Amino acid sequence: MIRALVFDVFGTLVDWRSGVARAFRASGVAGNPEELADDWRARYRPILAEVNEGARPWGNFDALHHATLSDLLAERGIDASEAQRRGLVEAWHRLEPWPDVPPGLEALRHRRAVATLSNGHLALLLDLARHADLRFDCLLSAELARAYKPAPAAYLTAARLLGVAPGELMLVAAHPWDLEGARRAGLRTAFVARPQEYGPGSPVRADPDADESVTWLPELADRLVD
Amino acid sequence: MIRALVFDVFGTLVDWRSGVARAFRASGVAGNPEELADDWRARYRPILAEVNEGARPWGNFDALHHATLSDLLAERGIDASEAQRRGLVEAWHRLEPWPDVPPGLEALRHRRAVATLSNGHLALLLDLARHADLRFDCLLSAELARAYKPAPAAYLTAARLLGVAPGELMLVAAHPWDLEGARRAGLRTAFVARPQEYGPGSPVRADPDADESVTWLPELADRLVD
Repeated sequence: MIRALVFDVFGTLVDWRSGVARAFRASGVAGNPEELADDWRARYRPILAEVNEGARPWGNFDALHHATLSDLLAERGIDASEAQRRGLVEAWHRLEPWPDVPPGLEALRHRRAVATLSNGHLALLLDLARHADLRFDCLLSAELARAYKPAPAAYLTAARLLGVAPGELMLVAAHPWDLEGARRAGLRTAFVARPQEYGPGSPVRADPDADESVTWLPELADRLVD
Repeated sequence: MIRALVFDVFGTLVDWRSGVARAFRASGVAGNPEELADDWRARYRPILAEVNEGARPWGNFDALHHATLSDLLAERGIDASEAQRRGLVEAWHRLEPWPDVPPGLEALRHRRAVATLSNGHLALLLDLARHADLRFDCLLSAELARAYKPAPAAYLTAARLLGVAPGELMLVAAHPWDLEGARRAGLRTAFVARPQEYGPGSPVRADPDADESVTWLPELADRLVD
C-alpha cells in the first residue's frame, strides 16, 4: 500500500533547461544559451557527489549553482559580473512546470499525500512552487537530511518525516539514477518520461525496474485507485 | 519588511478542545470530555520543557500525547484500553480550523509565503492540513530543529529553512509565551485572539508587545499591504 508520493523536481516537474537558457539569453552573457544550460546542469551530479563524499562542505543549491557557474565561465573564458551570476543562480527559482504537472499533482493529491523530494533546498522549492502555483501537502528536501540523493538518508529522512515506512512511499522521477537510489532505500518508484528535458536531442530513457512508468502524470493517478 | 509568515497551529489555527472532547465522548472513556481535554492539554508545556531540558528524550507529539494521556488516566483512576488511547492520540490529527482560517490563510498566501511553525511533528501537521484542506506553502515544525518552542532554535531553524532573516519572519500565534519566544529569537510577531480556545470560560489574553494584534486572520492580510 502506497501512502504517500514524493516528487523529484528539476527535470521531473519543472523544465529547467528552457528557463535557464532564457535567463542566459536575457543576461547578456556570451555563448549559446542552451549549450550553457546543459553544461551547467552537467556539473550538478559531480558537485553533489563531492558533498556526499565529504570532499566539499554542505552547500545549498544557490551556493552550488554559483560554484559550478564560476567553473563553467572560467573554463570557457566567459566574462560575467557578480550581478549577472546572481541573476543566473536566481533563474533556478523561477522555472515553468511541464504541462501535465498542474492537473497531475491535483489528481494525485486527492488520492495520496504528495510532497517534493528534491536535492534543491527548501527555500528554492518554495519559490518554485509559488511561481508555478503548484500545491503540495508539504515540501521535503535532501537539505533536511544533509545528504543529497541518491544517498539513502535523503529518501529515508523523507519517509520518517512523513510517518510512513519506506515501502509505503513512492518516488516519482524522470531519472533512473534517482529511482535506483530510492529502491536501494526501500521505496517504491514511478518513472515519468520527460523526453524534452534536454531539448530536441534528449536521450531516450526508461526504467524497467520501476513499479510504474508513465508519460503523463494524471496516468499515475488513474493507477493509484485503491 | 516581512517576507514570510509562520503560524502556530494548535489553538491558533485549529480548535483542539472541541475535537479532543468529541473524541473522548465517542471513545467510551469515563469522565467529563471537556475537562479531560483541558487536563490533557495542560500537560503539554511541562512535557515539552522536559524534552528541551534534556530530562526526556526527543519524542514526537504522538509519543508525548500518549505519555501525558497515560499520566492523566492513571492520576484520575480512569480505565482505557490501548486501542482507546491510540484513538484519542489520533484525534489530534483531525481537528477543525477556526472559521476565519481558510479565508485568512488564502488571503495571506497571496501576499507572503505562509508556513506552519508548530511543535507538532510534520506527519501530524500534514494530516491536519489535509483534513481541513488548508493550503500552506510549506510545513515547518519544531521537529526539524529537534527543539520545541519557545526554544530559540525552533524559530531560527524556520527562518534558515525559509531563507529569510529572523527579522523578516513573522510568527502568528494566539499564545503570548510563543510570541515572546519568537521575539527573543528576533522574529516579528502577530497576536491573534482566540477567545474560545478553552471554551466559554477562556482566559482573556492579549500581547501588548506584538507588532500586530487581530481578532480575525483576514485583518492581518489587510495590514500586510506592501
